[in-house]
Amino acid sequence: MGFWKNFFSGSDSTSMSKTAEQEECSIENQSSWSQVTRQPNSRNSRIFFSTDRDIDLYELEELCNAVGWSRRPLRKVKKAIQHSFLVVSMWQMRGNQRRLIGFARATSDHAFNATLWDVVVHPDFQNKGLGKALMRFIIKKLRSDDISNITLFADPHVVEFYRNLGFISDPEGIKGMFWYPD
Amino acid sequence: MGFWKNFFSGSDSTSMSKTAEQEECSIENQSSWSQVTRQPNSRNSRIFFSTDRDIDLYELEELCNAVGWSRRPLRKVKKAIQHSFLVVSMWQMRGNQRRLIGFARATSDHAFNATLWDVVVHPDFQNKGLGKALMRFIIKKLRSDDISNITLFADPHVVEFYRNLGFISDPEGIKGMFWYPD
Repeated sequence: MGFWKNFFSGSDSTSMSKTAEQEECSIENQSSWSQVTRQPNSRNSRIFFSTDRDIDLYELEELCNAVGWSRRPLRKVKKAIQHSFLVVSMWQMRGNQRRLIGFARATSDHAFNATLWDVVVHPDFQNKGLGKALMRFIIKKLRSDDISNITLFADPHVVEFYRNLGFISDPEGIKGMFWYPD
Repeated sequence: MGFWKNFFSGSDSTSMSKTAEQEECSIENQSSWSQVTRQPNSRNSRIFFSTDRDIDLYELEELCNAVGWSRRPLRKVKKAIQHSFLVVSMWQMRGNQRRLIGFARATSDHAFNATLWDVVVHPDFQNKGLGKALMRFIIKKLRSDDISNITLFADPHVVEFYRNLGFISDPEGIKGMFWYPD
């Protein structure tokens, strides 16, 4: 079962000009771990995170297309979502309308390790601190489940992004390795 | 539920001097995908693979101690085994006695990716081709489950071992990254 998390800080309209990351920081200081950000520079839209797995696969495919990922069989995407330990989606809400603008999921042994896959933020919503907010939401969620070792495989252009979030590449010479079928 | 796999090739006593890897290759050419090797230079012992999760945690801890890994709470090890997609153990059998000599497990989304963890071969049984046989067993098993992307995080001293098995480090600049709690 999933859930929707929403939290509106008491910040006034002046805070609308903050970046999502700044907004999120002010929320993190509160006792609730719920997170949501108002979308920067937009009075009427809000950003939600959800761990509900019941995601419209066509909407997800559209999001992945927007960042240039190759199409994958929806049957397999559905199975992967079902069997992921954590699935997080990020939504823009305008009135009653919602739009999928970000996604990530993690596989895990439920004890030691989690590995992130398919971390994506729609290009229209990049460079606003939302990717960072999404990642912080995920890390907090995994930490609350007592997972201490969070891993991922980063494309070269996002290594710095993850580094800024505290991820370390090749710690102590440990190498990420891949095996593909011939 | 797990299973035991055993297969005895028709090789005569002269083949006892072959390495486990060579022995395994002769088995791979047969239609059965079951795998087992006779232990090199030993007339009376045989090597089995199992995917049974019902492993004596103390025996596993002893194996991990033998390669110098730090101890972990058995409660968490048990949970990790339960929630791994694949668990493979390697056993030496002498008459009715069995000894745990190798282990590995994989987390997975059951669709696209699997990540290997805790790959270990007892020092007494290293450099005999058994690690390679264990890995080939795992790769074959994951491929039979239609998992195409097999990943792992390799310590520096085993990067070459995995490379020889067809694993690629940092393909297209993709970096393995870790996040640990402060």
